[in-house]
Amino acid sequence: MKVSELGEFGLIELVAGLVGRGLTPETARHGLMVGIGDDAAAWRTSSAIQLATTDTMIQGVHFTLDTATWRELGWKALAVNLSDIAAMGGSPKWALVTVGLPGDTEVDSVVELYRGMLDVASPSGAAIIGGDTVSSPLVVVSLTVMGEAVGDALLTRSSARPGDEVAVTGTLGAAAAGLAMLKRHLSFDPQTTAFLRAAHLRPQPRLAEGRLLVEHGVRAAIDISDGLIADLGHICQESRVAACLHADKVPIHPLTRAAFPTEALELALSGGEDYELLFTTSPRLMAQVAERLSIPVAVIGEIVEGEPGKVTLLDSEGREMAWGRGGWDHFRAKGI
Amino acid sequence: MKVSELGEFGLIELVAGLVGRGLTPETARHGLMVGIGDDAAAWRTSSAIQLATTDTMIQGVHFTLDTATWRELGWKALAVNLSDIAAMGGSPKWALVTVGLPGDTEVDSVVELYRGMLDVASPSGAAIIGGDTVSSPLVVVSLTVMGEAVGDALLTRSSARPGDEVAVTGTLGAAAAGLAMLKRHLSFDPQTTAFLRAAHLRPQPRLAEGRLLVEHGVRAAIDISDGLIADLGHICQESRVAACLHADKVPIHPLTRAAFPTEALELALSGGEDYELLFTTSPRLMAQVAERLSIPVAVIGEIVEGEPGKVTLLDSEGREMAWGRGGWDHFRAKGI
Repeated sequence: MKVSELGEFGLIELVAGLVGRGLTPETARHGLMVGIGDDAAAWRTSSAIQLATTDTMIQGVHFTLDTATWRELGWKALAVNLSDIAAMGGSPKWALVTVGLPGDTEVDSVVELYRGMLDVASPSGAAIIGGDTVSSPLVVVSLTVMGEAVGDALLTRSSARPGDEVAVTGTLGAAAAGLAMLKRHLSFDPQTTAFLRAAHLRPQPRLAEGRLLVEHGVRAAIDISDGLIADLGHICQESRVAACLHADKVPIHPLTRAAFPTEALELALSGGEDYELLFTTSPRLMAQVAERLSIPVAVIGEIVEGEPGKVTLLDSEGREMAWGRGGWDHFRAKGI
Repeated sequence: MKVSELGEFGLIELVAGLVGRGLTPETARHGLMVGIGDDAAAWRTSSAIQLATTDTMIQGVHFTLDTATWRELGWKALAVNLSDIAAMGGSPKWALVTVGLPGDTEVDSVVELYRGMLDVASPSGAAIIGGDTVSSPLVVVSLTVMGEAVGDALLTRSSARPGDEVAVTGTLGAAAAGLAMLKRHLSFDPQTTAFLRAAHLRPQPRLAEGRLLVEHGVRAAIDISDGLIADLGHICQESRVAACLHADKVPIHPLTRAAFPTEALELALSGGEDYELLFTTSPRLMAQVAERLSIPVAVIGEIVEGEPGKVTLLDSEGREMAWGRGGWDHFRAKGI
């Protein structure tokens, strides 16, 4: 069988089976709390819960230099890793940066790439402390970010419980709309163009929001990288629960809706790469955190008992809606 | 200017300049001990000194699937990272594995790749706890290994002092000889073939040796990846010292010498990828550790005052020898 037939999530399952999800009596004895299958790995030391995550961007698969500047590439490559730390409720501390470059790359481009990383590193509190530079026919940017949990608690994918409300920070669909704009060479007014471009290429890791959630007792979260339905499915799968999602409650920015009137909902449901936080908690806690977060929170669904991993999409009348596309699967790629 | 003109080490210097070697008042306050420019980054927590390193292998640059099996590729990709932890005197604990694969890769190949990693992970005490699987036109294997120092001391590149002896574990040149054998389709007897192939594709990270060195008071070390002269040059550069190296004392395995009689010395001096430990310490400590290490140690030179980074190669009469090639520079590649 080929990897493309197995798909990305099948491959992750295969790998988890081989390495034992990292959680064996031996690794548990060494303090491992979260292995393969969450936004970051987590292990306990006597000083703090440590976090580590890694994410890679490959030219022609995850980006092209026709649409992204080197500085934007640097920003995004680090931001998506910071977003994984945010989705665990932690604080990033250290980054290792691996860059693969063709020999004819301009040195100035490399400087811009690192500037983009520093643009997003500085406000986050993360420092670049090492890495690897290698020759490569394609540009490859692979980062590992290490951090610490706040106190003794984490946000995980496996903590959703029936009765929880499902909520998301910010708005969805703009990143995929930005990608569509760049791919299809669409023209919008300057404000829309800048908004959609930034949504796609300069995502904001929700670090402060992740920490606030965990401090207030929220325990289940994921960042939206594969798409809302797919990522809610990941939470449901890991938590052995199901979810209902109300399509009319999914927050979409007016600029996204105006630019893509017929596609906006699909972009928001399955476009991915918004890097907002999707989280679940009891209605009581939800009301508290929604009030305290400095960005809008939309309650968009509920966790229910049912087939583990199943997400049911409902329209404004409560009728089940069909949705054709899944989230982003790198091995069954939709193209960049 | 192009990256190929700047070269790998120029690029590392450029990056270190941009990110401040990671060592700023801010990062030092957060416990950073070692940033860019050593085998691994190191930072202090209240429980232990933490280590992290990353190394990447790209198809057509660092390996080909014509000469390496998937299982060997897995072994090597993890072993070279474990070797960096060994060169800090630490113990590996956790690994994050990023694999980029073409969609038409056989799933069985992926299984073999992870088996190769597990072959070397298990005896080392490292567990695979996460990572990333991405689609890629080329096979990319990028690992990050995190570990801990033994007690409160490290092996670093910056701790060599004039008067130290320079020594190396094991023998050198066999890895490069193995690469030459595979590239040139050379035939040797089965014992030689197996020895050279294993030296190139299944390097043994010197973890127990690194820990023994640090426990006995050795403080300066590097693992040999770029080549003996280049890596001794890295120690000298970071320690602001120079070194003399005695060509006739460089340990070369009889099988390497027999297979490559005219090239063995050059392979040992600049071939690279032996992943033996190169270390320096006082003659008194050197005698102690040489006795206690379970693999042979050869004293091959001395640290002296002089132009920082300069390595002088001497023949058996003490005359300076010319040597034409530097170590491995990925951006001025010699080809795999």
